Amino acid sequence: MAPAHSTPAPALAPAFGWLGEQRRAREAAGLVRTLRPRPADSPLLDLASNDYLGLARHPETVAGAVEAARRWGGGATGSRLVTGTTELHAELERELAEFCGFEAALVLSSGYAANLAAVTALAPNGSLIVSDAANHASLIDGCRLSRAATRVVPHADPAAVRAALGAHDGPAVVVSDSVFSVDGDRAPLTELGAVAREFGAGLIVDDAHGLGVLGAGGRGAPHAAGLAGDPGTVATVTLSKSFGSQGGAVLGPAPVIEHLVNTARTFIFDTGLAPAAAGAALAALRLLRREPRRAARAREVAATLHQLLTDEGLSAVRPDAAVVSVRAPSPDEAVRWAAACRAAGLAVGCFRPPSVPDGVSRLRLTARADLTDEQLAEAVRVIGRTAPRGAVSAGSR
Amino acid sequence: MAPAHSTPAPALAPAFGWLGEQRRAREAAGLVRTLRPRPADSPLLDLASNDYLGLARHPETVAGAVEAARRWGGGATGSRLVTGTTELHAELERELAEFCGFEAALVLSSGYAANLAAVTALAPNGSLIVSDAANHASLIDGCRLSRAATRVVPHADPAAVRAALGAHDGPAVVVSDSVFSVDGDRAPLTELGAVAREFGAGLIVDDAHGLGVLGAGGRGAPHAAGLAGDPGTVATVTLSKSFGSQGGAVLGPAPVIEHLVNTARTFIFDTGLAPAAAGAALAALRLLRREPRRAARAREVAATLHQLLTDEGLSAVRPDAAVVSVRAPSPDEAVRWAAACRAAGLAVGCFRPPSVPDGVSRLRLTARADLTDEQLAEAVRVIGRTAPRGAVSAGSR
Repeated sequence: MAPAHSTPAPALAPAFGWLGEQRRAREAAGLVRTLRPRPADSPLLDLASNDYLGLARHPETVAGAVEAARRWGGGATGSRLVTGTTELHAELERELAEFCGFEAALVLSSGYAANLAAVTALAPNGSLIVSDAANHASLIDGCRLSRAATRVVPHADPAAVRAALGAHDGPAVVVSDSVFSVDGDRAPLTELGAVAREFGAGLIVDDAHGLGVLGAGGRGAPHAAGLAGDPGTVATVTLSKSFGSQGGAVLGPAPVIEHLVNTARTFIFDTGLAPAAAGAALAALRLLRREPRRAARAREVAATLHQLLTDEGLSAVRPDAAVVSVRAPSPDEAVRWAAACRAAGLAVGCFRPPSVPDGVSRLRLTARADLTDEQLAEAVRVIGRTAPRGAVSAGSR
Repeated sequence: MAPAHSTPAPALAPAFGWLGEQRRAREAAGLVRTLRPRPADSPLLDLASNDYLGLARHPETVAGAVEAARRWGGGATGSRLVTGTTELHAELERELAEFCGFEAALVLSSGYAANLAAVTALAPNGSLIVSDAANHASLIDGCRLSRAATRVVPHADPAAVRAALGAHDGPAVVVSDSVFSVDGDRAPLTELGAVAREFGAGLIVDDAHGLGVLGAGGRGAPHAAGLAGDPGTVATVTLSKSFGSQGGAVLGPAPVIEHLVNTARTFIFDTGLAPAAAGAALAALRLLRREPRRAARAREVAATLHQLLTDEGLSAVRPDAAVVSVRAPSPDEAVRWAAACRAAGLAVGCFRPPSVPDGVSRLRLTARADLTDEQLAEAVRVIGRTAPRGAVSAGSR
């Protein structure tokens, strides 16, 4: 996300000569991305990570990783179907399913893999996928990989979902993020569940940004919407956001999970999640069960952040979970704004095409449960002071 | 991989009613897979994992995981492009690229993600992918996800690759495993590299089963074939096999890696690899550099295993790396055979449809560098004693 620097174009083999043109186009559009390694003791105030509950570096999460690595080793050593399932994986799956209110869970090596698994395994040839236009890349790739037909419907529009399902005969699934990662707004899950049930369709909800933040004690958006344990609903989650670790999981009825074990390619043909990641996630889950207030605190922090930004005259989207999005006038200005924040000691996310479905660039702020009111005030002062002219308006949403 | 048990069919919602039929078909075909969680102190002799160098539980690998979790926390906290790149990731990428002989490396959360990234990013719309018929599922899914046309060619057949490339005008990539995961045989990489170069095509090699085993000191199959650092060659590797950890990486020319940073969806939209996994992999890599004999020892163990199996009259494929495949007469007999081995204290892999490209079931044995000759002799005694009648013949390959 660093600003584009003009570096000498490297030599390319004939095989990859076409990359040069794409590189020049990115440079011309100000859309070059570079990696910026961070130190362990960064002095920046972090409003950029997805560590919503501030648990990634919590001593208990770290201890969970350390103990698991010591007991089980550095890796799972094979596919979950061969040697890659430890008793630790089974324990995590049991506790995760119980916490979120589903019958069963299946842990995969990432949320991306979980979404590919759920969508491809539950949308067979001849079926229909009805997919929200703002869904995450991993759900979109799941649709592309599946043998089903995909109908993309307007964002958060149950009537459009109803029309799509009504026009199809045969198995169907409705696929939606619960909280959309870019703007932080919430899907109309209750309505989507009702429409899916009416047409005998399944509902797949990606709760990556809901788990740990929404629902009683952070049990997630499906739980909040009364869909946890529903026989037609499947949820996917990540262990890398609120749980401060890595990995993903699919939650649903036991026969659906058994089907995934037998058919989902990103489950069958991938090494099991590393023990340290399973141990860290399990420790974070147990900590959240013991301290359920952390979920509500993340929502409070987001609401405060939104209020303070609005008071500054910035165009922030009212948050439904822990993500607060602030519009920027252009990709270039978004990059400069984020860089100015960084220079002033504040790390913020900067989302630009092609990472945004609507082409609108924004700063993306995450409201960690462990941020203090003083830190929030300081963050908003920096954001306001560094805002490009076009980002500040009299009225804001 | 447990034998099919007749469990009562669970109730299914209308949305997922079609799963019942698939379940019954699996049961009828003897192809039901169930998860079998293993304890940390399993008494089984392990010839099933992909822990080729025996490093997953090595004290240095474990220490690498532990130190990384303590220093960096349980997770990377975000996409590599936002907060998910630590100095540890950069260090691992530098050392991995240098070790394997490539200009640059990019670490992803799994080998599956690395293959999806490399294939989709390097095979644009209008291009051609020439893909070996026995390629790993993750390469096949990469082909499916890409916007390119895919031509599947017969296994290990450079002439077929040549014909496919000759019939195409425009960018093209040849995609192949280096060591095929089911039978353990090696791709004709030198020939594939020459054909690709002749037609100005790229070559993507999945070296998941070659890294740590083939090449000088385990530098991998591309290094052994003189293709490391070749400007038209890209390699993908896993950190979850010889390096005893989790994760994957793409290795190649710097501009190719820069292109992936900017365009590969499974890189951009995924949380960075957990620090503990990066730390474990880096420790294993450094250990292998210090003790390069481990790679040769894995190959020796495989050759010994093959010889002993052949002496028993079993049909084992001559291993090119550390995987030794033994044919079984049927899926049912393969399952019974593996179960009998397990009952006698030996864990072996059991590959059945749909995990095998040719529909042939087999036991899959892995030759860990840390197995002793006594353990090998004992393993083969068990395999021979439990072999189904149809698996033993006078002549073997």
